[in-house]
Amino acid sequence: MAINGATPMVDFSHHLNRKSKARHPSPLKDIIKYMGVEGMISLAGGLPHPMTFPLQQATFDCLPPSASISSEGPGEGPENALSITLGRGASSPGNLDLTQFLQYGTGTGNKHLLSQCRALTEKVHSPPGQYDCLLHPGNTNAWAKVVGMLCEDDDFVLVEEYTYPSAQALWIPLGIRAVPVPADMEGIRASDLRSLLANWDEKGRGARRPRVIYLVGVGSNPTGITISRERRKEVYDVCVEFDIIIVEDDPYYFLQYPSYNHPTSTSTDTTSFTALGADSFLKTLIPSFLSLDTQSRVIRLESFSKTLFPGLRVGYFIAHPVFIERLLRATEVETQDPAGLSQAFVLGLLNKWGVDGYLEWLQRLQNEYRVRRDWIVDAFHKEFLVVPAEDSPVPDAQGLIACLKTSRDGEQGLRPVFSFVDPGAGMFVWCKFYFGQVSRFAELQNQSTSPTKSEDTDPEQIFATELWKAWAGELVLLTPGSYYHPWQGKDKVTTRARGADAGTAHFRFSFATPTVCCLLSIFFPPFFCYVGG
Amino acid sequence: MAINGATPMVDFSHHLNRKSKARHPSPLKDIIKYMGVEGMISLAGGLPHPMTFPLQQATFDCLPPSASISSEGPGEGPENALSITLGRGASSPGNLDLTQFLQYGTGTGNKHLLSQCRALTEKVHSPPGQYDCLLHPGNTNAWAKVVGMLCEDDDFVLVEEYTYPSAQALWIPLGIRAVPVPADMEGIRASDLRSLLANWDEKGRGARRPRVIYLVGVGSNPTGITISRERRKEVYDVCVEFDIIIVEDDPYYFLQYPSYNHPTSTSTDTTSFTALGADSFLKTLIPSFLSLDTQSRVIRLESFSKTLFPGLRVGYFIAHPVFIERLLRATEVETQDPAGLSQAFVLGLLNKWGVDGYLEWLQRLQNEYRVRRDWIVDAFHKEFLVVPAEDSPVPDAQGLIACLKTSRDGEQGLRPVFSFVDPGAGMFVWCKFYFGQVSRFAELQNQSTSPTKSEDTDPEQIFATELWKAWAGELVLLTPGSYYHPWQGKDKVTTRARGADAGTAHFRFSFATPTVCCLLSIFFPPFFCYVGG
Repeated sequence: MAINGATPMVDFSHHLNRKSKARHPSPLKDIIKYMGVEGMISLAGGLPHPMTFPLQQATFDCLPPSASISSEGPGEGPENALSITLGRGASSPGNLDLTQFLQYGTGTGNKHLLSQCRALTEKVHSPPGQYDCLLHPGNTNAWAKVVGMLCEDDDFVLVEEYTYPSAQALWIPLGIRAVPVPADMEGIRASDLRSLLANWDEKGRGARRPRVIYLVGVGSNPTGITISRERRKEVYDVCVEFDIIIVEDDPYYFLQYPSYNHPTSTSTDTTSFTALGADSFLKTLIPSFLSLDTQSRVIRLESFSKTLFPGLRVGYFIAHPVFIERLLRATEVETQDPAGLSQAFVLGLLNKWGVDGYLEWLQRLQNEYRVRRDWIVDAFHKEFLVVPAEDSPVPDAQGLIACLKTSRDGEQGLRPVFSFVDPGAGMFVWCKFYFGQVSRFAELQNQSTSPTKSEDTDPEQIFATELWKAWAGELVLLTPGSYYHPWQGKDKVTTRARGADAGTAHFRFSFATPTVCCLLSIFFPPFFCYVGG
Repeated sequence: MAINGATPMVDFSHHLNRKSKARHPSPLKDIIKYMGVEGMISLAGGLPHPMTFPLQQATFDCLPPSASISSEGPGEGPENALSITLGRGASSPGNLDLTQFLQYGTGTGNKHLLSQCRALTEKVHSPPGQYDCLLHPGNTNAWAKVVGMLCEDDDFVLVEEYTYPSAQALWIPLGIRAVPVPADMEGIRASDLRSLLANWDEKGRGARRPRVIYLVGVGSNPTGITISRERRKEVYDVCVEFDIIIVEDDPYYFLQYPSYNHPTSTSTDTTSFTALGADSFLKTLIPSFLSLDTQSRVIRLESFSKTLFPGLRVGYFIAHPVFIERLLRATEVETQDPAGLSQAFVLGLLNKWGVDGYLEWLQRLQNEYRVRRDWIVDAFHKEFLVVPAEDSPVPDAQGLIACLKTSRDGEQGLRPVFSFVDPGAGMFVWCKFYFGQVSRFAELQNQSTSPTKSEDTDPEQIFATELWKAWAGELVLLTPGSYYHPWQGKDKVTTRARGADAGTAHFRFSFATPTVCCLLSIFFPPFFCYVGG
């Protein structure tokens, strides 16, 4: 925990919801105090005897941080591997006794692993406020615990204009609704956030002013947008003004890329990649909200899912001690410690690699996904004429527009197919498709405006679903944009009711998994069929 | 899933609470359907690329099922170990591809591991009703999900007379209260359960009749009591009559022991132990509620924490498909799959050992804890005169009474110190101490009856705490019985308000961890000092 004497301590206890406040400290705490006493004979613990654990030794063969990721491939053997062995007893190789990871934990997670998490936090974010760390079993559960701590049923939660569906699937059954904050290419707009909060109509909304904002601030899922440095400061200031807790879910933080240049100016040969020193690398990254957080109002959810692997189900909270204490109480009764083998693996790896080694690994990872980002945007350029939004006939578009050349009555023109923002981070390109000139859409639109049809028809959604299914029939799968619409209640579901642009719908392209050949040769032909290009 | 055509299907959907009913199926389900299509190019998944996972191979060195547990000890090397290796790619040794355990899962858990869980369920319980299985990250979380599915805030939940504190620590903040069901040596009394439900006063209680009973039916924590075969049938029938869902939390199921005989009639030499065949072993075990469950109203929480090791954080639900489906929805947004390395380890081990090997392992484990049960009860016999309850001067006592011989005015007598029930399963002896003849307790009692004292003093609790601290000062740690009092609300906390016997308090002795020497030589001297023996 870093305590900065210059920063006044802010009291956040009023942010705890009724249920979280009502959690009693575990009675076992009284006992744990005595368990540490030298020579104590404990007849108290309900722990199984460690000699009954059938696992005697675990060995993990890993890549070194300097490994060339893409050339290695998943099927390769453990040649040149770096081996982490954990045996039973203190004399175990590397002095990491496996037994501690096999037994029940106390809820906080392994203390050595927590130290590594704190070291990493200091190195990467140097939080200016007071904080502590607590392990959790992945960001999905971490977010569930934060909602369980801060939100009352029927609250509103502030989210980005498009938001991660699993985050809201959690709270929709609680009666919680989203308040989307309008965004531009630099992320959510602080001015809109401010006016939304300043003009909150508690009576009209039927709920108190929101107290929590959920942000994937780097390479947002689905939009790929990273909130800019300047915008972060503005948003933070609004959160201070209106006493908002910022939940920073940031799995793509280390996957930040230089801007895409066409034709690709950076190398796609990942084997010849040279890593920067740790400090130089960190300077290239946008500052996290945590690093700006003089008041400790940021709850940061750290994940290893994108940087090591998702099956670990280990991450950690970084937050004000008041929140960490309540999250620990929830951990004791809702999940207990993350799985021991996962903790052992992460600790073993961080010990072996060192924090600097981990930061080197992250650069190779970043470069690998940067190459993939380039592939997909290259493919857009190859198949379309990509022009800046301001040069296209689409009103209010941001970023770039992928157009088809048209020829009508002998006149050359541009027909916009979709707009997108160069994803400067993460794994996704978020594409807004324009259906205005598609005949099938016009047909659906005509049906929906006929007087026999009810108000809640949604020709945009119907056409988007047809398009999505047609592409899938041609063996190309995208994610429908509708998954990412914030849940504002049953009356705000259709394109019109949400206030979205008529004749448009979004699809999310992931460049994380597919290989280059499929992007270039397989995707586009069926794509053209259905947009009528 | 076993479907027994003869059993009428019962509709349980009315048991789902408001929030659980409101969970939408994950929109990703639409996509998953298409992901399995041959040749599909997916730009949909938000999964990181498997080639970026730094773990190339995992090797687990384990004991064979025939290992002599106690002689092996935790510090031993992996000699004679059975090795489980998981590499990347389909050509991996043993054909278990590690990659699938490193990637995100779908929420259900690995399908091969689920098959093993189903095979084990059929072999051990042969459930007569319809059921399905779903992995969960340990029984703590499993119970949290069940409460999240079945209980409304401010409900009452039926529990044993003394109950596991972490189970109720979860729901106390929700406003849920316990209704303890009186018990005897055969477990909770069906007649009391029946009359409690038949006479439920919804107005007086301020809540609807309970719909859920939480049971640790074998070697209960803390009482060590196992619900008898006959009693199980009676309890099940009452649950059918009043439409109660039975949550069977059964971590000690395989730790069932033959009755203790004094002097110890069974061998304490665990190296010469000979295992029975799997079927013969299973016949020695009391039938689970699941095995009697013709209606599928049992939700069984299966744990590997006591049979393999707790750090795994893997177990599984066995329940009616209606419940499994809702639990899966909760899993998707609250936890995701259990940790991949844990799943890989359990699957690798069950594949290598086989179900029969696992059942052999369980017998050795059972024998090891049986020996420990014998140690502690031997120690009671060595230090006290242990007589059947009916031969002692304590009214209403059950089981055995540990007495001291007294000599007063030349007359020989017996002074009861504590009563206990021979734990036929699990890890605990639950001891009820009698303070009636202790002078310090008499002093506290006098203070509490003085007119200046308020109604809510609790001399029993005060003395029990003094005793507990004094023992701890002498380096012997027990668990205070107060941890296990069901939470019935703020007005039912004191010994008197709970209706417990005056001049008594419980302590829980665990025989799972300590070694024999400490039991015999260290525990009793300080013990005598403070009960004034």
